[in-house]
Amino acid sequence: MTTTDAVPGVPRVPRRPGADARLLADFVDLSAIGATAAGGVERQAATPDDGRSRAWLAAWLTERGFTVVHDRVGNMFGLHEFVPGAPYVLAGSHLDSQPRGGRFDGAYGVLAAAHAADRLRVHYRDSGETPRFNIGVVNWFNEEGSRFKPSMMGSAVFTGAMPLATALDTPDAAGVTVRDALQAIDGLGEADVFGTDRRVCSYAEIHIEQGRELDKTGTTLGLVDATWAANKYEIAVIGSQAHTGATAMADRRDALYGAALAVVAVRELADRFGEDLHTSCGQLTVVPNSPVVVAREVHMHLDLRSPSDDLLAEADALLRRQFAEIEVKADVEIERRVAHTWKGHLYQPAGVELARTVTEDLGVSSMIVRTRAGHDSTNMKDVVPTVMLFIPSVEGISHAEAEFTRDEDLCTGVDVLTETLARMLDGALAPE
Amino acid sequence: MTTTDAVPGVPRVPRRPGADARLLADFVDLSAIGATAAGGVERQAATPDDGRSRAWLAAWLTERGFTVVHDRVGNMFGLHEFVPGAPYVLAGSHLDSQPRGGRFDGAYGVLAAAHAADRLRVHYRDSGETPRFNIGVVNWFNEEGSRFKPSMMGSAVFTGAMPLATALDTPDAAGVTVRDALQAIDGLGEADVFGTDRRVCSYAEIHIEQGRELDKTGTTLGLVDATWAANKYEIAVIGSQAHTGATAMADRRDALYGAALAVVAVRELADRFGEDLHTSCGQLTVVPNSPVVVAREVHMHLDLRSPSDDLLAEADALLRRQFAEIEVKADVEIERRVAHTWKGHLYQPAGVELARTVTEDLGVSSMIVRTRAGHDSTNMKDVVPTVMLFIPSVEGISHAEAEFTRDEDLCTGVDVLTETLARMLDGALAPE
Repeated sequence: MTTTDAVPGVPRVPRRPGADARLLADFVDLSAIGATAAGGVERQAATPDDGRSRAWLAAWLTERGFTVVHDRVGNMFGLHEFVPGAPYVLAGSHLDSQPRGGRFDGAYGVLAAAHAADRLRVHYRDSGETPRFNIGVVNWFNEEGSRFKPSMMGSAVFTGAMPLATALDTPDAAGVTVRDALQAIDGLGEADVFGTDRRVCSYAEIHIEQGRELDKTGTTLGLVDATWAANKYEIAVIGSQAHTGATAMADRRDALYGAALAVVAVRELADRFGEDLHTSCGQLTVVPNSPVVVAREVHMHLDLRSPSDDLLAEADALLRRQFAEIEVKADVEIERRVAHTWKGHLYQPAGVELARTVTEDLGVSSMIVRTRAGHDSTNMKDVVPTVMLFIPSVEGISHAEAEFTRDEDLCTGVDVLTETLARMLDGALAPE
Repeated sequence: MTTTDAVPGVPRVPRRPGADARLLADFVDLSAIGATAAGGVERQAATPDDGRSRAWLAAWLTERGFTVVHDRVGNMFGLHEFVPGAPYVLAGSHLDSQPRGGRFDGAYGVLAAAHAADRLRVHYRDSGETPRFNIGVVNWFNEEGSRFKPSMMGSAVFTGAMPLATALDTPDAAGVTVRDALQAIDGLGEADVFGTDRRVCSYAEIHIEQGRELDKTGTTLGLVDATWAANKYEIAVIGSQAHTGATAMADRRDALYGAALAVVAVRELADRFGEDLHTSCGQLTVVPNSPVVVAREVHMHLDLRSPSDDLLAEADALLRRQFAEIEVKADVEIERRVAHTWKGHLYQPAGVELARTVTEDLGVSSMIVRTRAGHDSTNMKDVVPTVMLFIPSVEGISHAEAEFTRDEDLCTGVDVLTETLARMLDGALAPE
């Protein structure tokens, strides 16, 4: 086996002419799938348009000699073997989107990984060198969690954070399960892709920032050193169905009034704790939702995030007390039904340092950032050394059609990812 | 023409043995159509179950010699002619229900009218007497307004308050129009039933109270002398779609936060004005309604009611000012899109007095009440002398499966309605 150590200050993999143009052209093609009139995409998990974007990626990878395989929760891999039996360096993100989402969120990371992996494939083929590890591109299933909850489902099953059966049995609002939806788009594999015979040794992901730190400071690359902690829960507000006109106000047990007080309380929590707490209610469903009926039940999804586990716990305790007050004020009951909690966690400092060195060597400006949003790398960093990179998103717009990243940042991101992966293939982040 | 004037203190139409048992048995049969597990019914307008309840009524009327006809907006009439060419005294209510509604609301009034009309038919057949007018039973289309808005649609078209085409073109949430839905249940007639050749001279309706005045005071019959005024409007709260985790709180334009503030403001308006103002938001729809997306748009239906037109106007003006404050606080826009306004109105005092005399003659306790809910009689009283009667609803529960009225009140209600209609057939409420 011939390996070549990276020389400090010198890119491991030289760029090739036309690489940027090919990347941008491919991104235009990919963005046409599920495109919305306002420049976004709508490709919720395992919908026909998600299926079309997956087929597009499979064709792209297959044409370039990658072996495309699906695992049992619909994660897609494009594998290229340099060294038979060696572990894989994986890179990727997700092609699924929010309803009327942006075209960059996730999809850019998958395409960047595919282009980076292909540059590495061509480099090793032409140079005659052989790296220590193999390379794989991944499109994680259902990162967004809009159609099937929770989010980051594919990477959660992959890393053992969620049982496979739980994921496959998850229904969407119409009662269609993940299993049936994946089968309908031909996206369900019959076996694990990684396990006893094939192993992952490290992971890298690149994503748009979904915040405005990079854009505000004019920095090209974000080196993610930590995630925000998140508490997500479903609550049900239970009242009594009644007539909106005839029922005396004092007799009402209005679930929607209780829910509205809860939405306001959740928002005021953020006002109270300042910039280190983000709170939201994005989903709220009224039952029976008739204009002349006082609601008997409201279902809500709440979302609290903070860089500090302690602050989050404090906010959570305060919210519980406020819910108790709302129960009295609106004469309703508030049930907490399902909860998902992600503690705040650090990415491996060695990964942050590797990426920092790469940006320095390539002459790209960078800064340390934290991610407030969850990513598939949030799961992957719990099982293998992981590098998470951000490129700027103009004005920090995200989960919206107006999301926008400049072409030069898209191209620079792939350069940084390629060089980072090259060094990972050579052994960076691997145990000695 | 032989007519017999009512003798004060003596019922015009004697009761017949077994009438109560037949009424209650029929009510059990009718309540089985669209029955819910918790004792209510779900028969929203022009659904298959509404169609089945209409077919049940048509068969009942036809078996007893009534002529069943539909008009061009799906109102159903069962007509019995005593005097060829004479005007009709109409009585009825509606068979459609709210989603998971009660089994008494509307359906009781239609069944009571059918039984009362049939008692009168049999009485005049057997006695050899002939009244001044003919009798008709009516099942008004879409009183509830849950599937197709607004409520009281059939009687609004009948009385000229709404154009026929507007009603027929109204879509439900799935885009199905009233026209298509009525055709699907075979409920659309080809011509007006009343008009130049056939006229209505007066109307009576009996309904459960949808309030607790009668139940609280132990009174059997409510004599409705006035309606509450109502303002109903649709508003849209417009914000910007964003990521719930990543977007800084200060950057958010959260439509659901704005909507929640509006729901709370609407409720607090009622707290401020006391018992003479009822306010509600029963329908609220979030777009895109994903747990990790800050809502870009919320659609809401608001409902303000008062016995006083002036108080309602004052409350409305105050709410507009509060909406302006919410627009600033939540950085959203609030658009008022559609509004329906019903002024408060008196029922004809002669009708109230007629019903009062009947209850006195029958030895039934009664009291004057106002209706906070709208009824088809709200429309009918604008075109003909109208009597509106209430029977008690236990604890005033309404628009809910737990709605309940005792058998003895159901039976007494039909007795009072029968006697009231008998006197109307003889000329009470008619111009001399």
